[in-house]
This record gives sequence, structure tokens and C-alpha cells, in this order.
Amino acid sequence: MKITSPEAYLDSLRRLDRRVYVLGERVDDTVDNPLTRPSANAVAESYNLGDEPEAEELLFCKSHLTGETTSRFTHIHQSTDDLVDKVLMQRMLGRRTATCFQRCVGMDGFNALYSVTYECDQAHGTDYHRRLKDYLEWVQGENIVVEGAMTDVKGDRGKRPGEQADLDMFVRIVDRTPEGIVVRGAKAHQTGALNSHEILVMPTVGMREDEGDFAVSFAVPSDEKGITFVLGRQPSDTRKMEGSPLDVGNPVYGSQEALVIFDDVFVPKERIFMAGECDQSGKVVERFASFHRQSYGGCKVGVGDVLIGAAQLAATYQGAQKASHVRDKITEMIHLNETLFCCGIACSARGEATPSGGYMVDPLLANICKLNVTRFPFEIARLLQDIAGGLIVTMPSAKDFENPEIAPYLDKYLKGVDGVSTLDRIKIMKFIENMTVGCGAAAYLTESIHGAGSPQAQRIMISRLADLDEKVGLAKRVAQIDD
Amino acid sequence: MKITSPEAYLDSLRRLDRRVYVLGERVDDTVDNPLTRPSANAVAESYNLGDEPEAEELLFCKSHLTGETTSRFTHIHQSTDDLVDKVLMQRMLGRRTATCFQRCVGMDGFNALYSVTYECDQAHGTDYHRRLKDYLEWVQGENIVVEGAMTDVKGDRGKRPGEQADLDMFVRIVDRTPEGIVVRGAKAHQTGALNSHEILVMPTVGMREDEGDFAVSFAVPSDEKGITFVLGRQPSDTRKMEGSPLDVGNPVYGSQEALVIFDDVFVPKERIFMAGECDQSGKVVERFASFHRQSYGGCKVGVGDVLIGAAQLAATYQGAQKASHVRDKITEMIHLNETLFCCGIACSARGEATPSGGYMVDPLLANICKLNVTRFPFEIARLLQDIAGGLIVTMPSAKDFENPEIAPYLDKYLKGVDGVSTLDRIKIMKFIENMTVGCGAAAYLTESIHGAGSPQAQRIMISRLADLDEKVGLAKRVAQIDD
Amino acid sequence: MKITSPEAYLDSLRRLDRRVYVLGERVDDTVDNPLTRPSANAVAESYNLGDEPEAEELLFCKSHLTGETTSRFTHIHQSTDDLVDKVLMQRMLGRRTATCFQRCVGMDGFNALYSVTYECDQAHGTDYHRRLKDYLEWVQGENIVVEGAMTDVKGDRGKRPGEQADLDMFVRIVDRTPEGIVVRGAKAHQTGALNSHEILVMPTVGMREDEGDFAVSFAVPSDEKGITFVLGRQPSDTRKMEGSPLDVGNPVYGSQEALVIFDDVFVPKERIFMAGECDQSGKVVERFASFHRQSYGGCKVGVGDVLIGAAQLAATYQGAQKASHVRDKITEMIHLNETLFCCGIACSARGEATPSGGYMVDPLLANICKLNVTRFPFEIARLLQDIAGGLIVTMPSAKDFENPEIAPYLDKYLKGVDGVSTLDRIKIMKFIENMTVGCGAAAYLTESIHGAGSPQAQRIMISRLADLDEKVGLAKRVAQIDD
Amino acid sequence: MKITSPEAYLDSLRRLDRRVYVLGERVDDTVDNPLTRPSANAVAESYNLGDEPEAEELLFCKSHLTGETTSRFTHIHQSTDDLVDKVLMQRMLGRRTATCFQRCVGMDGFNALYSVTYECDQAHGTDYHRRLKDYLEWVQGENIVVEGAMTDVKGDRGKRPGEQADLDMFVRIVDRTPEGIVVRGAKAHQTGALNSHEILVMPTVGMREDEGDFAVSFAVPSDEKGITFVLGRQPSDTRKMEGSPLDVGNPVYGSQEALVIFDDVFVPKERIFMAGECDQSGKVVERFASFHRQSYGGCKVGVGDVLIGAAQLAATYQGAQKASHVRDKITEMIHLNETLFCCGIACSARGEATPSGGYMVDPLLANICKLNVTRFPFEIARLLQDIAGGLIVTMPSAKDFENPEIAPYLDKYLKGVDGVSTLDRIKIMKFIENMTVGCGAAAYLTESIHGAGSPQAQRIMISRLADLDEKVGLAKRVAQIDD
Repeated sequence: MKITSPEAYLDSLRRLDRRVYVLGERVDDTVDNPLTRPSANAVAESYNLGDEPEAEELLFCKSHLTGETTSRFTHIHQSTDDLVDKVLMQRMLGRRTATCFQRCVGMDGFNALYSVTYECDQAHGTDYHRRLKDYLEWVQGENIVVEGAMTDVKGDRGKRPGEQADLDMFVRIVDRTPEGIVVRGAKAHQTGALNSHEILVMPTVGMREDEGDFAVSFAVPSDEKGITFVLGRQPSDTRKMEGSPLDVGNPVYGSQEALVIFDDVFVPKERIFMAGECDQSGKVVERFASFHRQSYGGCKVGVGDVLIGAAQLAATYQGAQKASHVRDKITEMIHLNETLFCCGIACSARGEATPSGGYMVDPLLANICKLNVTRFPFEIARLLQDIAGGLIVTMPSAKDFENPEIAPYLDKYLKGVDGVSTLDRIKIMKFIENMTVGCGAAAYLTESIHGAGSPQAQRIMISRLADLDEKVGLAKRVAQIDD
Repeated sequence: MKITSPEAYLDSLRRLDRRVYVLGERVDDTVDNPLTRPSANAVAESYNLGDEPEAEELLFCKSHLTGETTSRFTHIHQSTDDLVDKVLMQRMLGRRTATCFQRCVGMDGFNALYSVTYECDQAHGTDYHRRLKDYLEWVQGENIVVEGAMTDVKGDRGKRPGEQADLDMFVRIVDRTPEGIVVRGAKAHQTGALNSHEILVMPTVGMREDEGDFAVSFAVPSDEKGITFVLGRQPSDTRKMEGSPLDVGNPVYGSQEALVIFDDVFVPKERIFMAGECDQSGKVVERFASFHRQSYGGCKVGVGDVLIGAAQLAATYQGAQKASHVRDKITEMIHLNETLFCCGIACSARGEATPSGGYMVDPLLANICKLNVTRFPFEIARLLQDIAGGLIVTMPSAKDFENPEIAPYLDKYLKGVDGVSTLDRIKIMKFIENMTVGCGAAAYLTESIHGAGSPQAQRIMISRLADLDEKVGLAKRVAQIDD
Repeated sequence: MKITSPEAYLDSLRRLDRRVYVLGERVDDTVDNPLTRPSANAVAESYNLGDEPEAEELLFCKSHLTGETTSRFTHIHQSTDDLVDKVLMQRMLGRRTATCFQRCVGMDGFNALYSVTYECDQAHGTDYHRRLKDYLEWVQGENIVVEGAMTDVKGDRGKRPGEQADLDMFVRIVDRTPEGIVVRGAKAHQTGALNSHEILVMPTVGMREDEGDFAVSFAVPSDEKGITFVLGRQPSDTRKMEGSPLDVGNPVYGSQEALVIFDDVFVPKERIFMAGECDQSGKVVERFASFHRQSYGGCKVGVGDVLIGAAQLAATYQGAQKASHVRDKITEMIHLNETLFCCGIACSARGEATPSGGYMVDPLLANICKLNVTRFPFEIARLLQDIAGGLIVTMPSAKDFENPEIAPYLDKYLKGVDGVSTLDRIKIMKFIENMTVGCGAAAYLTESIHGAGSPQAQRIMISRLADLDEKVGLAKRVAQIDD
Repeated sequence: MKITSPEAYLDSLRRLDRRVYVLGERVDDTVDNPLTRPSANAVAESYNLGDEPEAEELLFCKSHLTGETTSRFTHIHQSTDDLVDKVLMQRMLGRRTATCFQRCVGMDGFNALYSVTYECDQAHGTDYHRRLKDYLEWVQGENIVVEGAMTDVKGDRGKRPGEQADLDMFVRIVDRTPEGIVVRGAKAHQTGALNSHEILVMPTVGMREDEGDFAVSFAVPSDEKGITFVLGRQPSDTRKMEGSPLDVGNPVYGSQEALVIFDDVFVPKERIFMAGECDQSGKVVERFASFHRQSYGGCKVGVGDVLIGAAQLAATYQGAQKASHVRDKITEMIHLNETLFCCGIACSARGEATPSGGYMVDPLLANICKLNVTRFPFEIARLLQDIAGGLIVTMPSAKDFENPEIAPYLDKYLKGVDGVSTLDRIKIMKFIENMTVGCGAAAYLTESIHGAGSPQAQRIMISRLADLDEKVGLAKRVAQIDD
């Protein structure tokens, strides 16, 4: 039954029968758990038409498979306009939620596999592209959330998959039958894992010839037998369980990551999209990475918009908004944020069609985009803290504001300008705390470094994709050096 | 007679009868003067089809006025594709010349005036748009170079045009007759002034109601009576006159600026595009600035490509190209350079049609582009100097290499790796000297700060164009602050 | 009774009878409360001789008042060597605790007031310097902790103390009697307030002639009638109450801030060090700020040392320590950290005697020091997160590691290199989480911006203290411009 | 005859009989040559008592060898105060000259060799320390200029000295006789080579056991048989020969480098300070480098002072000095400049005695100092260009200002605020041109990267000198990880 509203989405999650551990205990329901609910709310926004005039056009588009209207999160990009619209959609949802809305990894996984399965079939005579299209058609029809799962736990970073003391450090095929395969391993840092109906697994590095068991891609329901989820902690996470929205800062929305363990999980043939084609594995990684590095030029920019607004609001609430240094810092925040947006747009506008017909971003510019994302949000957060003031880490708790013995003191002494209630000032300060040193920082800062690959991964790609020989030729010509 | 080749262009320059001063002396010919020839060569590349496969498509397009093929430098952008192609063309010419090819200012001036004259006519019942189209049609037909002249000398920066002790600090109308106007004043830092057939003057700031004489825009031939040019000096400029291409570093191409003085110059009616419409003057400034701030996301990126190639070549010539810190610095240079390109592309791809039909870049993103240009080339140049080594400022002169008493010493002791001639190594080092502390630095560094407006001008626009109120609304919503 | 050990210190705290609110509830004991104990432990290190060979010489020195051995935290600096030793002591304690050990504010307050009371007595015939010496002698004899309290809550930043709608926004004298004064107001962000026996109040800005009631400095016991403390929240603070040292990251040490409210508190004459001498108030602020800006060149450097060690350890535990980019990032962390140390040392070594005999740091260089502290720790933290990996915000909870159903999975899949236990790897990751986005970040990041004054305060002082006229003279001479 | 005045110094240079090539021609006199005179003037300032109150104390001190007053440039540091005074002297001379005064390399060479020869004699039973003291006593008595010569030409950077195709890429002993040695090779980038009476040669890298011929240190007169000097070019160098002080920008002072070629030069025994003791060669390099990296924390700071003054003056001359962004940029320039000073002071104040009795800077902090110098001057120069405006690279020539046909135009149109002559404004602009893209940039920018070793050399030392194991221990203790 197609999911058509945020409420229907939350209901569908409640119906999943998964093995989930949260803070050391097994939990049945992640929707009505206060710790994980905000992250479900963030995903639910992808089902919410909202009130932005451009929302409908951004959130939905026409499926090239069925001709039906489909969520862009389940769509294969058919043009550079599609690629640009993806970024605009992400910025919009970042503005709504001020956090990670978690549904992009699956979208980027689909799009990477779409072109690679096509090329794999050409090269190996396999049948993966057809399977993927069938799967996608079903996903579009149901409008479900599919988590893209790439990052293996990796063990010793100095060793390759096949060299690890424990071979399970990278998800691998441990058995092959005519009906399918059995896989074992774990995927780490799985964003939105608890909010997904399906898991789409991809390899995490390009595999060598003798590493065929690790060159594996497939989809499974998130409540498949053998799968266990362990929720990761975030800073200040348990504030969500205190019943004090004030102290949470961003009380409605949040993000979430989990460790997803595959303990000999069976995958039927029709859901396998790679199983041993080593020469294709690196392409999946690079294309997925390119799409996901593009994504950061949208979502984090949307979050940045909220942070810029928070800076302006905090300054206004304490009477500092006209100081030239405050205005200058806010201008710098805008400048950095829009530079990220430029990168997101540019790699999209310079995209090109793959042989499969699906469109791919410019991979060099997508890597440029992400490398900037590993830097600028930190400077934006620092400027935001500068403008907000030290109060963000010295504010009393919500419970203090509720205690009649001291609430009048707090109301009196933590007031800013006339005409603004102390509590409103505290609200924006708690929000800023959340985003710069609280659970929001996990998504806005740490994830900005490591999501879609750590900075060094981008640098390696940039070095590889920039045609240095051509540039040497340019220099020789201008300096009149003969070859 | 339409100019159709670099040679024809140079010949046409030779035929101009102008009042030009170079290093204190009046000169008749700027083409065959070794000091100014390299800058003419750079402009001439805009007439050179070259050997890049994409060159023709980038350098030429179809005029919307005549349907004829026209140089893109004389074209009014008709789509976002046109805006993107402009950037690609600029990057290509930057790669050819490693300097400023000077013809963009006129192109950007046309495009700014095209939409503003249209709106001015709507608001004031004037006839400027038709005049500009006629003028453009002639320019396209002849394929001549038109310099865009905006920057006034400005006198005391703490005072407005009308408050200056000497009112001529901003170009102004000193007389009006039925046939036209008489103007006085001077335009500073006029890039490519000596390589232009025509001068297209625009106001340099938005004018107030009582500053109507300063709200003036017009075109005049560069050899009009009353106009004087004084060439500006650049670092190491006279090396071009020493007859030693080696010491010049970039022996073929260069840039050039002049002070252009208007000593009561008459402008006929048909060439006047603004004369007192104060409310339109600010729009010209902002739109021109936006177009020109976009331009920097193309041309300087092309120059950056050459510098990256030079870094790689210099490292290779001295056996350091495999050192991890060298590779890392080159990767950083690429990253910064491509970030600028992203900004150039993004403001183009997000452009929109004006009421006139001409397309305009996204002004916020164009300002973001330029603000990055005021920073990154400096870091690129620093990294380049780091990789090249101190030799760039301690190399003997070309004449030393020609003196048989010491040439053998120099050949022996300044050699890098086996298989590379000492002179080739010196050539790339002299090029790097040129670009980072020589005359190339005037175009690549100083111009990157101040061309198209100094950094503070971009910051003011960024602050103005970013919708802070909307962002405050986003922050309030997420932090649950009621209005 | 003189406090001579960490244990004796903690006991003395237990004996205080204060009005303290923690998370909305009144608490009697802050020592045995798991939320606040780590911060008491950090202060207790100032009483711990420790095992560093230089510790005794740094922690203790000879009082110039009594000739007795005294804690350096209660000492008036008698030489530039004393100033340097202060920085070395702070670096040492930062290395022990990886957080703020909170006792410096009082030390810096004493030293600021020491010279200003001397000069005030000279100018106004007051008796403050003698009182302060008497007070200090007592403090040294008891070896108690004195909190320096400067930052007022300030209300509307666009208005001066006397212009606020509520005059209590700055601590002020509301009554004067022959025996003393009565004060009202609140001090915000009071570091270590709950770990102090005494509070030493100073004004927060220079006061104008008509703001005499705000020009007030005095000392009171922390359990004086009318004083209320409200503890501020820090990120992840309640993890300290979960009984899971693992999840705390830095389980033994922490920092803490409180809002300290003075509700008509009586101060006897002998403890008043300023009461209306407006012309002296600015000097207290500037000197205290200089001393405290110096302090950051010691303590944060010590914390930085631990973070650099953590980076190296985390990299080693996952087999990445030999990667050139990892080594380069660690080198950059060291570089930034030691640059801060250079600033701490330089402002100390360039210190000078005040008329009182007490030594004062070089105020320009102390401001330089702090302005760098508002920047570099953020970059150090970003690099640390880069090296550590995304795991720092996606790790399961300590309770997951204790649950036998999933602990084996976690032990298996979160392992790094052979020979290192998974739990050890997790410990260093949790520590890095604490320091970069957890409660440690409050002290290492946010406090680095705002402690001892926000960046703009340093910039104003730098601009004021750098002799621009002299520099203009230098430029004129070299450029041969006659006056 | 002891040199006791700038004039006497210049006369002594005139008497040297050297083989010098300048711009391809052999020249007899480098003092009265307009191209090289400014660099001689800069060195001459080391003989000029000047008018600063602290000058005498900084420029002169008591020799520990003779008890006589001696130039600090020939002194062996006897205390940390001496080390600090060295930095203060360098800042003072940087303020006077706005360039490199070239005499520090020799001073730093003496001080490095002083301790190493002492230790070498202990280890090898050699007699070098006594020889060096005798030499120094003579140098102090004559007060001559001794150039320190370290940097070899190096050939292929991927190969060691003994692996080069041409073994002369590193200065080496080609013959040994009972009376002395014969050396061959070349030293590059020799600052102040043409202004020195003597050359003190040191090895450029630590040598391995089988590279004994390269482990060589000695002193020779600069007019010794077999030595050839070839002057290096700097940007805009020939402006000094145009007879137009205005266009030079810094007409009196300059710097200079030369390639110094040793074509089988004989060195008598008494002037040899190392000849084959490979284990000592690395120490010379590291100590010299430490001293010279300290030096940059003095001299470049002095130059920075002049640039800050120039920024303020340029802004004032065009009426922009009150704009908040201008004031902010100047504050940033001061901040960066004083951070460098902090590093220079800190490595000096933390210096320690060597076994020889001579004092050595803290090597870690000296490397920190220099690494900052490879960055901050570039940002200072960028900010200076930002404030000055594009005019710095578009100004007409001095000859234009002298041509009566156009001088009135220039005087009128290049004027800034009332009350300041156009020519004064142009003077400061030409100075800024000189310092940021002219010959001054060679000393202020390029030399700041590569002088005393390129950035990577500092990074390697920083990594080596920071005790990472100790820091790992700190992290383990705080995170409670058992060894």
C-alpha cells in the first residue's frame, strides 16, 4: 500500500518486526520512543508536502519506469534539471528540519547502481539491471524508505578486506545457493537505519580480483531474519527522554545512526545486484560517493540557512544585531554556506548521461563540493557560537525554569532586550547549543567530515580526476617549453 | 569591415589615432611596442579559433538581433546555457593566455545595460534600449573590441560624488546640447583600454536624486577628441623591453590597465544610454558587477589551471613530484581552483531572464563567486611558490645565461633532474615568478581582489541579497518560537 | 586550617552551607553528586603534587607577603619568571585533566586588583590595597579556592549599565552603611563557582562617572546569605549520572559553570576593594582580561596535548598512523597548539612590573594569545574528528557493551588492529567525542571563544594597544614622505 | 681596521676584489651600482646607531671572548636575554628598512657552529672549536660582515648528495692537503652575498657515513680565488636603474641574493670547522635552522609593522580609515604580525645553554615560528592590497608625473583627500606595490616561505620534536586506558 503521508509512514514503521537495541535494551518500537522519534519525524518530512511553493515540484517527479508520480527519493535522475532539483529539495528539507533527513543514501545508492548494473550486464552478461529496475518499480509503487548501506566496519585500516584477521570486517558472501546468497558482516554509521523499510547494501571499496566475496550488492527488508540494529549514541541524546523540549533545542527533528549486523542473512536471487564482479565494485563506490557528495551541497546548506537565521535571531534578542562585527560574521556565514550551495549546483548542472540513461553528476565537482563541506560548517558553527555567546553552554536546565524558587531569578537575569521573553531567548540559545555541541552537531559537523567518505577520500579522487597532464601541457605552452 | 582574425584585429588597432602615454612618453603605436604587445596578443586570442574542440561553440554564437554568427564577447545572453558557455569560454582563454584577455568588461557592460535600458525606457519613456540595440548590432557586425569603463577615480572615499572638492572625481555631464552631451572626468584601472576600439562608459555607484549629472552612460570611439590614455605600470613590466623572453616568464601574453581621461568629450545622442536617470544608475552598477563577478569564476580558473600545471612541472623538473606533501599541495590548488569554477557555473546555471529577454546571473551567487576569488588565488599562488622553491626570486638573468663566462656554471648548477635541460627548468621558474610576484601577479592577484569591485562591495551585496528575515523565520520554526 | 591535599579540599567543600540548584532541584552536596564531582576533581588537582618532576616548583612558590610557601593560584606574580611559571603550571594541569581546572579566574582577579587597588589608593586616598593584602594573606594561609566573578548578565547589549530597563543587569550597590555595602545582581558563566570557598567580584566593563554604583569589587564567602547558585547544563552532562564511565569519555575530570545570584548580599567594609571609583573600574577589567587571556595560552595548550595524543592513539588503534595525511594532520595540530603556547609564553616573558610591585603581562600580546585561542582549538578539534572517524558519534552505549546478547557482536565488529581490545579503542573514541561534541567541548571550544572575553573584545584591545601612529611614521620614513 | 660606521662599511665593500656578474655583465663595484646599492644600504643599517632609544643596547653587546663591545651580529648568545634581544634588534632593523638586512645568516651560522664544533671536538678530538673562536675574535675585532652559506643547489631532490649524476650538486671537498682543503660546488639563494667580506660555509643536510666529502664547513674571504658571484633577479629590479625613486617604492633599502660558485677554492686549515665528521653535519643544519627560524620572528615582524603603517596611511590618504571593515582588516594584520612576534619571543625565552656555553633557542618553538612565517605574511600582504586598492598595479610611471602634458591630469585625478598631495599618496602606493608584488615581495613573501628552509622542513622537525609518545600517555591516562 503506497505511503502517502507522514502519518502513514510512521505507522508503517510501527509495523516492522525488527531486532533493535537502544541504550543496551531491546526495543520493539522506535517510532514512539522519545529517543528515536525525532529522527523518524525528519524522514517523515519527505512525505510532507509542506507549505513552500516549490515543494511539490521538488519532492515529486515522474518515474521514467512507470510514468507515475513518484517521490524524488526513489527516482533515477533523467536530466541535469533532475540533478539540480535534487539539491534544491535537499536544501528545502534541511531548512525544515535543521538536521539529516536520512533518505538520501538510498536515493544515491539506487542511482549509482542503476548505471553500474547496466554496464555490468554489458560486460558480464548478468541480469542485474533488470532486477534493479523491478525492485525500484516496487519501491516507487510502495513509496517506502530504503537505506543505502555502504560503510563496512573495516577493522585494521592498514589492511585490505582479504587481509583482515577476521574476514567479516567487510560484508561478504559466506554461502551461495541456486536460490540466493548468504551474507555476513556489519555496516557502520548507518544513517536512518531505524527509519527504513529496506536496506540496500553496496561494497565499501573497489575489490581486487581475489576479493570476489566482498564484491556484493543486494537489498533486504530491514526485518529480515539475522539482522540486528544497535543504535549509536549522540551528544546529549537522552535529553530527548527528559520530557523537556526546551533542553533539546531542536525538539521535533533529529538524526540517528545505527550499527547494522548481518549474521548469515539470506538474500534471494532477485534482490542481488552484484555478487563477485570485482571490476564493477569500485565504480559503485565512486558513483555512489559522487552522488552523495553532491547531496551535501544541498542538505547542509539548508541546515546552514537555519543556523544563519539563529545567529541573527540570537543577536537581535540581545541587542547586538547592529554591531558591525556581528553583521560581518553573519555575512561570512552566508558566504560560506552559499559557496557550498554553488558546489552542489555546479556538479549537478555539469552532470552527464551514463550509458544506462540515468544522469550522473560531474564527479570532480562533487568531490570538490564535499571537501568544502568538511571545512565550512565548522567555521559556520564557530561564528555562530561567537555571535550567540557563552550562554549556550552555561544555561540552566528546563527544570530550573520550572522551579518556582528560582524561575523568577532566571526570568529576570537571563533576559535580553525588552519585548522578547526570556524563554524565547533561551529557546534559540538551546537550539544553537544543540547544533554546535549537542546532538545536532553529530549531523552538522561530524557527519559533514565523514559522511560520503572522509576528506582524504575526496582528495584522492580530486587528484585522480583533475587532468594533471593536460594542465602540464598548458603550462609548457605558455612558458614556451617544447615537448 | 568585420574583424575575423587575430592579425586583422592587430591591424585594426594600428589604425587607431589615439592620444596615448607610455612610461612618460606619447606613443603612436601600442601594437608593435614590446611593452604593450603582449596585452594585445591576449585580446587577439578572442579572435583565434584555436585548437580546442569546444572552441568554436564557445567563442561564437548566434546573435538574437541579427541571427548572424557573432563573437560571444558581443552577445546578449539568451539562456542559462549562454551564461554557462560564457564561463567555459573564459576558462578556455585563461588557459591559453594565463592572464586577463580584457574583453569581458565590454561584454558584461552590454549585458547589464541591455536590461536596464529596457526598464529605464519603461519607467521614463526614454529611447535608450533601441539605441543600445542599434549600437550592438554595429559592434557585432564589425566584431570590434569595446572596453567597459566603470571605475571612477573617486577622490575622497568618505564623500559622495556630489560632495567632492573637485566634482570631476566622477565622470559627469558638463554640458547638454540638442545633439548630445559633453562629459568630463576619468576612469581608472581601465583593463584593456589600449586594445579597444570603443569605450562604453557606465556610472560607478548608484546616484542620488541630486546627482543626475553623474548618472551617465555612453559609448565613444577610443580615438575621440579629448580622450587621453596613460598606461599603468606593472611589476617587472620593462622586462618585456629587454629583448629577453626568458626573463619575462610569460613572453607572449600579458594584461594592461590605463587611466582614461575625458577632457570635455562630446557624445552624440545616439550613443547615450543614460543621462540623468538616477534611479537606474544603481541597477547598472549591480548588474554589471554581477556579470563581472561571474566572469572571474571562469577566467581566473583558467589561469589557475596553468598554475597547477606549472606546479606539477616544476616539481617534476626537480624530482619532487612524488613527495606526499607536494601531491597534497597540488590537490589543494586544484580544490581551490575548482571551487571557484563551481561558483562561476552555479551563478550561471541559476540565472534568470530579465524583462528585456536578456539573461542575468544569480546575483547572490555571483557575489559569492567573486568573494572567493579575492581569497583563493592568493593561497594558490602561495602553494605554487612553496612547491617551486626560492629560486623563483633568485634566478640569474637571461643575459647571464648568454654570457659564455658564466653560462656553463649556470647550466651545471641550476640543473634539476636528468633529462631536463636547465633552460626548460628556468623557463617554468620564470613563469612562476611572473605569475606570483611579477607582472602576471597584477592580473592574477591584485585584480582578483579589486576587479569587479573590492571585497567589501561583495560583502555588502551578499548581506543585502541573502534573505535574513526568511532565515530568521526558519530558525523560529525549528526552535518553536512563536511570532 | 590550611588545605593541603585533594581530599582535604573535597572535605572542605562538603562543609559549605550554600544554596545550590542542580537540574531544577536544590542540592546540599556538590562533591558527592556524580554530575558535579568531576569538576571538583579537576580543581582538586591544584592540590595534588602529582608525579611530574616540575610539579612542585610550578604549583607552589614563596609568598611575597609572608615568605611562606603558597599555592601559585593565590600568589601575586613577582617577576616575568613567575608569569612564565604560571603558564607552565596551567599547561601541566591541562595535560592532567583535559579540561578547565577552574582556579585561574581567582588568581587572575587577585593579580589585577593588586595593582589597581594600589593605584586607586594613590589617586583617591582609599585603603583598598591594604585590605586586599590582608585578604590575600588569609587566603594563602588557608589555601582556599576563590572564584573570580566578573561577567554580568548584561541584558540589552546595545545599552550601558545605567541605561538598562532593569538596573540589576549589572551587579550594583543598592545600599551603603558605615559597616559595608549591600549588593544585588548576578554573575553569569561562573566557572568553578560550585567548587569555591570564596567569591571575588569585579566589574565587567569600565564605568562612566554616573555609574558609580556599578563600579564595585568585593569578596564574600560562597555560603553568604542571599547568594544562590544555579548550575548550567553542558552537552551530554547527564551521562555522568548513568553510572557508565565509558560513555562519559573523560570520566574523572570535568568543568562546570553556574549562574551566581546576589540578592541583596551584605559585604563588610574590610572585604570591599572598590565602591564607586569609576576611573579604576576599566583598569580592573583590562588587567584581569590580560591575565586571563594569558592563562588560555597555558591551560588550553595542555588540553591540546591530550587531544594530539588521542589523535595519535586513535589512528594507531585503527592502523592508520603511518598514512601521510594522518601524520600531516597531527603535525598541524601540534603546530597550532604550540603557536598558542608561544603566545602564552611571549606575553609572560615580555611582562613588566606595575607600580604596586606585582608583575603584569604584556597586554597586547596577551590579547593576541586569546584571539588565537578563539580560533585554533576549533581547527584542532576538526582535525581530531577527521582522524578519529565518524564512529565518535555513532558508537553504541556502554550498556550495549554490557548486554550479552549484543556485546559479542560489538566486540567483533568494532575492533581495530590486532592486539588492541575493542574496549580500549572505544574508550579513546568516547574521549574524543567528549572533547569535540560532548561536555568537554564546552570547556575546550565554547569557553575558548568566550572565556576572558569574546573575540571582538580582544580585537578592540589589539587595535587600541598597537601604536598605529608610530607605524604610520615608519611607513612614511621608508616611503620618504615628509610630515 | 674595525668598521664603525655605515660609510666605513660601504668603503670596505668597495675595496673588495671579487668576480661578480650582474645582469650578464661583470661589475667591479656593487656599492655604487644603483641595482645593488639599496641592499648594501640595508646591511649598513646594522652599523647605524639610529635614533631609537633602545638601539645601542640591541645592536651592541659585550663579547664573551674579549670582553669588548661587539656587534650583536658577531656575538655568541650567552643567555635567553641575548636571544630575546636578538629578536628585538631584528624587529627594529626590519622597521627601519622594510626588507631583509642580510646580516643574520652569518650570526646564526656562528652560533650553530659554536656549539657543534665544541661537541665535535669532544667526540672526535678535533680542534674546530678553538679555530672558530679565533676566527670569531678576528671578525668581532674587524666588525666585518660574514655571510652564512648553507643552501646547496641540490640537483635532483629525489636523490641524496652521493647519488647525484653530478657530485658537485652539493659543495664538497675535492682535495685534501696538509695545508688545507680544496672545495667545489655552489651555494644558491645567498642572501647578502655581495655585501659580505667573508663567507661561512655549512652543509645543507645531515650526511651519511659515506658522504664525508660533503660534511664540510669553512670560512673564506669573499674575494678568494675561484669564487664567482651571479646576482639573482628580483621583480621590478631594474626600476632602481631608471633614476626614478618614486617607482621603486622603497628607494633606499632592498635585499639581494646571489648564486655563489666555488670552483676549486682552497681553504687553509685554520678556517676549516668540519671536514668529514658526518655525525656532526645534521646538528649544524638543525641548529642553524633553529636560530634562523627564530630570526624570522623578528625581522619579518619589523617589516610587518611598516606594512601596517602603510595600510593605515593609504586608507587615510583616500578617506577610508574610519570604515569598520578597514579597521577590522588592520586589526587582523596586527594580530597576525604580533603572533609571529610571540613565536620569535617564545622560542628565545625558552632557550637553553648548550655544553659549549652558547645559548640555543627552543628548537620546537623556533620551527613553529617559521612555519607561521610561511603563512601569515601572505595574508598580511593580501589585506594590505585589499585596503590600498587596485591602484597599486595601475599607477602611471614616475616619468608620466614628470611630463608636463599629462602631469596636471594625474595630479588632478589621482588625488585622494584634501590636504594630502597626490604625490604623497602615490609614494605610499608605490611602496605597497613594491612590498606585495615588487622586489620587496621577494624578501617579504617568497623568502618567508623558503628562507631557513621550506615549510615541509619545519613540519618534519615539528613532528620529530613534539614528544608524541608522551602525549599518547596523557591521553591514555585521562581516558583510563591501561598500558
